[in-house]
Amino acid sequence: MIMFNSDYLEGAHEKIIKRLAETNLVQTIGYGEDEYCAHAKEMIRKELGDDNAYIEFLVGGTQTNTTVLDYLMRSHEGVIAATTGHIACHESGAIEATGHKVITLPEHNGKITAQQIEEYVLGHLNDESKEHMVKPKVVFIAFSTEEGTLYTKAELKSIYEVCNKYKLYLYLDGARLGYGLTSEKCDLSLQDIYNYTDVFYIGGTKVGALFGEAVVFKSTTCYDEFKYYIKQKGGLLAKGRLLGIQYECLFEKENDECLYFSIARHANAMAMKLKQAFLDAGFSLYRDSYTNQQFPILPDSLIAKLKDNYSFNYWCRINEHESAVRFCTSWATKEENVDSFISDLNRLK
Amino acid sequence: MIMFNSDYLEGAHEKIIKRLAETNLVQTIGYGEDEYCAHAKEMIRKELGDDNAYIEFLVGGTQTNTTVLDYLMRSHEGVIAATTGHIACHESGAIEATGHKVITLPEHNGKITAQQIEEYVLGHLNDESKEHMVKPKVVFIAFSTEEGTLYTKAELKSIYEVCNKYKLYLYLDGARLGYGLTSEKCDLSLQDIYNYTDVFYIGGTKVGALFGEAVVFKSTTCYDEFKYYIKQKGGLLAKGRLLGIQYECLFEKENDECLYFSIARHANAMAMKLKQAFLDAGFSLYRDSYTNQQFPILPDSLIAKLKDNYSFNYWCRINEHESAVRFCTSWATKEENVDSFISDLNRLK
Amino acid sequence: MIMFNSDYLEGAHEKIIKRLAETNLVQTIGYGEDEYCAHAKEMIRKELGDDNAYIEFLVGGTQTNTTVLDYLMRSHEGVIAATTGHIACHESGAIEATGHKVITLPEHNGKITAQQIEEYVLGHLNDESKEHMVKPKVVFIAFSTEEGTLYTKAELKSIYEVCNKYKLYLYLDGARLGYGLTSEKCDLSLQDIYNYTDVFYIGGTKVGALFGEAVVFKSTTCYDEFKYYIKQKGGLLAKGRLLGIQYECLFEKENDECLYFSIARHANAMAMKLKQAFLDAGFSLYRDSYTNQQFPILPDSLIAKLKDNYSFNYWCRINEHESAVRFCTSWATKEENVDSFISDLNRLK
Amino acid sequence: MIMFNSDYLEGAHEKIIKRLAETNLVQTIGYGEDEYCAHAKEMIRKELGDDNAYIEFLVGGTQTNTTVLDYLMRSHEGVIAATTGHIACHESGAIEATGHKVITLPEHNGKITAQQIEEYVLGHLNDESKEHMVKPKVVFIAFSTEEGTLYTKAELKSIYEVCNKYKLYLYLDGARLGYGLTSEKCDLSLQDIYNYTDVFYIGGTKVGALFGEAVVFKSTTCYDEFKYYIKQKGGLLAKGRLLGIQYECLFEKENDECLYFSIARHANAMAMKLKQAFLDAGFSLYRDSYTNQQFPILPDSLIAKLKDNYSFNYWCRINEHESAVRFCTSWATKEENVDSFISDLNRLK
Repeated sequence: MIMFNSDYLEGAHEKIIKRLAETNLVQTIGYGEDEYCAHAKEMIRKELGDDNAYIEFLVGGTQTNTTVLDYLMRSHEGVIAATTGHIACHESGAIEATGHKVITLPEHNGKITAQQIEEYVLGHLNDESKEHMVKPKVVFIAFSTEEGTLYTKAELKSIYEVCNKYKLYLYLDGARLGYGLTSEKCDLSLQDIYNYTDVFYIGGTKVGALFGEAVVFKSTTCYDEFKYYIKQKGGLLAKGRLLGIQYECLFEKENDECLYFSIARHANAMAMKLKQAFLDAGFSLYRDSYTNQQFPILPDSLIAKLKDNYSFNYWCRINEHESAVRFCTSWATKEENVDSFISDLNRLK
Repeated sequence: MIMFNSDYLEGAHEKIIKRLAETNLVQTIGYGEDEYCAHAKEMIRKELGDDNAYIEFLVGGTQTNTTVLDYLMRSHEGVIAATTGHIACHESGAIEATGHKVITLPEHNGKITAQQIEEYVLGHLNDESKEHMVKPKVVFIAFSTEEGTLYTKAELKSIYEVCNKYKLYLYLDGARLGYGLTSEKCDLSLQDIYNYTDVFYIGGTKVGALFGEAVVFKSTTCYDEFKYYIKQKGGLLAKGRLLGIQYECLFEKENDECLYFSIARHANAMAMKLKQAFLDAGFSLYRDSYTNQQFPILPDSLIAKLKDNYSFNYWCRINEHESAVRFCTSWATKEENVDSFISDLNRLK
Repeated sequence: MIMFNSDYLEGAHEKIIKRLAETNLVQTIGYGEDEYCAHAKEMIRKELGDDNAYIEFLVGGTQTNTTVLDYLMRSHEGVIAATTGHIACHESGAIEATGHKVITLPEHNGKITAQQIEEYVLGHLNDESKEHMVKPKVVFIAFSTEEGTLYTKAELKSIYEVCNKYKLYLYLDGARLGYGLTSEKCDLSLQDIYNYTDVFYIGGTKVGALFGEAVVFKSTTCYDEFKYYIKQKGGLLAKGRLLGIQYECLFEKENDECLYFSIARHANAMAMKLKQAFLDAGFSLYRDSYTNQQFPILPDSLIAKLKDNYSFNYWCRINEHESAVRFCTSWATKEENVDSFISDLNRLK
Repeated sequence: MIMFNSDYLEGAHEKIIKRLAETNLVQTIGYGEDEYCAHAKEMIRKELGDDNAYIEFLVGGTQTNTTVLDYLMRSHEGVIAATTGHIACHESGAIEATGHKVITLPEHNGKITAQQIEEYVLGHLNDESKEHMVKPKVVFIAFSTEEGTLYTKAELKSIYEVCNKYKLYLYLDGARLGYGLTSEKCDLSLQDIYNYTDVFYIGGTKVGALFGEAVVFKSTTCYDEFKYYIKQKGGLLAKGRLLGIQYECLFEKENDECLYFSIARHANAMAMKLKQAFLDAGFSLYRDSYTNQQFPILPDSLIAKLKDNYSFNYWCRINEHESAVRFCTSWATKEENVDSFISDLNRLK
């Protein structure tokens, strides 16, 4: 069985496994106060172009979203997200469990717009009974989005401007940041992400690490006492060095590119190959994604046949005979498996 | 610098590192639904002597305590703990952040008694305005305790009986379960722990794993829908297999003993060597511990001198000239480091 | 200035004011354990036709919704409501503040249907990753709705059946229960409301009382330890007798009808008079309401002129020149004020 | 049966009942935005000597404590209170239910000291792992205390100074503020309370009102967006005018003293009469209270005999044959009832 279900099917990039083994018996103090973490933060700050960026490492995505969002909001405040936003639909109410409403706006291709945000905020501000409603305080977006799509630089910039105008924080979920930034359609750099958000994270779990997410607060955003929140929400890893070591590996450069980006680039290439194959075979796409998640619309009968040898995710029903499904590639996807799949697709279609 | 600060100063037992490398590129589905996790649970169940014990793997201790305790309680219910209990003093209010009061009882050697619990519960039940108080629903104890001490079988059994009598859950924090069970003074087995609690966890982070805690619900305790809580509290590791693989290693046997226990036994031996050295050198002990945490009372001047080459934790002030400090050993403690320390202790005292 | 802004513009029905004065110096114990409360509950139970219905008195609507809903749900559970549901949009995130997601379904005339609920629940149950989503546990509806509309007996019954089928609780917000039950279009009785819900409340604040909501749990629904929640959520009135005394008045009968219903009937009559006037004057209605809230669509210019002498609420913009506005009548609305308004409406239109 | 159980056994001062009746049919907008509330706030501000004091009216004590404390704290912060503090023991975990730890310090006569607070805060600040503990942010005290005792001006001032020094808020629960301020042993004025706290409330429920607590934020303390919290916590009374009307009455002056104080003075006089009677009869006191709560230590046999005609609260066991009990007087206590009790006490002792 060859699996395309997600981007977390394997362990970690071999460089990481090797480094963990090499450093295994070194003694360090716990909770991320070690030298590996300090160095990894240094490396990331260099890429961000700001020596004062504030960085902390957490273990997983839901944990990161919950910790950051609760940190950014007081009890009466809520976070705006697309209806397809991960925090709105696939985190078991983690945000609500910390007391905050997720305010959903209709998504367009997995995205929301600056205009939608402004209209919502104005609607709230102009309401005579505004205290009877949750006060919007944070805007949540993902890059790449949960639907594989990308914000353009212009879109991100205008969202950030609206956020600044109304004193909202802009928080970007970068679980798949590597795949987004290395997409052929991306016109944003890592520094742009840093400049046009207040907080974001550089996802490791889905991009080469065993686990780990690097939260980045812009140096001008408040981050004082954030560590209390990491501990309280259960995200303070005792052996924090494991995160530092992994991010050191991911941000080491070969041929002038960080490992984080070169492995993401590979995943995108594999995804583009799959996408072309679906199009060549005459299938349409539920989302026009240029990142590592692909959403072809396939006949149910073909899906059933493909399932004999391949594993992938059901996404949603399109009509009586067809469904959208999701194929994920990752840093670990073998080209031979992609080729084998394409050949079977053409044979079975 | 030789460190005795904690039992999480190094990575993981070499067997684990090796196994993680070997399995690294195997594809598995996420969130702990893989074969490694299934097998590890099977191995643990066998040690517990109950094929129906319900087991889930989480990443860290605070996360585990928060997830389990919120699961066991409704909004108006609270958890009873010793004043020295980890949830009462060193988890940044994680339990309260999920809405529950931690009800503290005075500790004796880091422990609470069945009698204390019964008196508290009766005080509540007999109060005319009992609805004006939090209803006690869970009893939290740690084994070994945060102070290195141990409950005896008789003590645990009587606490469990009181809990049953008043329909309280008994939850045991096993962050250092391995060190507790292999102590020379321990009269409890792993099966006893299973039999005389409702829920407990087998701590991996402090006993040989990179990270990981195996939560065990007795087969007769409710655990339905516990996975929702793991996800909501941010504890559902995407690459859940990492936990399964580690626990497989820890529960493999050599000479009829699980690795988990043999490495813990080593830590205790190293701790006993340190303890004897402190006693031989004429120092007294703040806690009479027979596990991997030792709490000698040393002159401040000696502490200062030892700090040149050794690192360990300040615990509390005893008088104007002396303080209690904490030395931790672990599965990774090298005997040569212990010997070197003892020699320096005797030289500098 | 004559006000039609809401149904809580005046104090209480004169009978209540009189009774409060008469009983003022009687000594009773606090927290609703007094004889007035006991008697009021008895009177309500008689109307419900079940001597075992469980009743508690709370002070206000948001407080009641929060207390009941937190009581009915565990941490991973959420409540389904219409997008127009009060808990979804006008309670400042009170439900989320207790940790629970409000799951919104599209409204039709302020209502949701049994079919919508079933589809949502099935979608959840059939999802492979259902633990990544909030588990639906309660359905929230209002009667009359926030938009002045009514569920029919057939609609309520089928919602209740779906709830039973999937083990959801059905909770009915009865802030305007009196106005709903005495509407000319209502085919439900108070006993029907009791029979086809699990919990509901009989709103006093908007129907003749100074304040107060009587929560009714069906005798077969769990209500054990509900008082802990009332206290914890700040709803346990020290002088609980004030609620008992008011509900005694509201459930006393004259000409075989409880005061609660006869005064609500008056409000509806006044509303119908307003409605007819709007229709006669050629205006259309945003909602076709047969209860005490009326939503005519008026030209902005007319609204401005009417505002000189009358006060009412802006609801929403319809087009560039017209808006929907809300007129509320209540038990206290004077017919002479309605007549004066109608005459001005016809003069100014 | 004559009752001395609490200070909320009757309705409200007759002046309030009369005023509620007189204003009953006046139309006002809801939620405390009416003229009565505006005027009452003006009257209170005048007594405080600061035109910019920020005031809001809430319904009850637990609700007020919860709303204010959640407002003053972020998620990782906690509130310091005496072990006998109402929030620590008699509010069903209301504070914890909003996510915050109540940090308890040992009480002395129902009070805590500036020194205790400073030591606790320094212990936290100087801890290397301070992020593993809840950050203290608010100090909670009651005046008069839950045990009937009083802070002196010097004590309050030094607590306030410590709070300022460490950027803690000082919040004073004034459920019995009237009884405290009019005690013969009190050296504090209302203006002192305002000057030496950040937030406090003027309790109405126990001092003459049907219900109601007036929260006062010092003009230099942040109170922006506090109304969101009142709504979210269920404390925004629809007919907010009821609170305004009551506080207007309570702050009207006769012979240059506000009704609020003159009625409290009466309660204290009645309590002093009871106290003297207990002392004259040879009984000792559990607390040496100079306010409306009295705590004599009586033989159990005498308690049983008194219970035939009088009702009062059990407090705690003193020894095998004696218990402390609580007698409360209030604005409504009739001197003839006190005299009758004293005569029976002397007859039965």
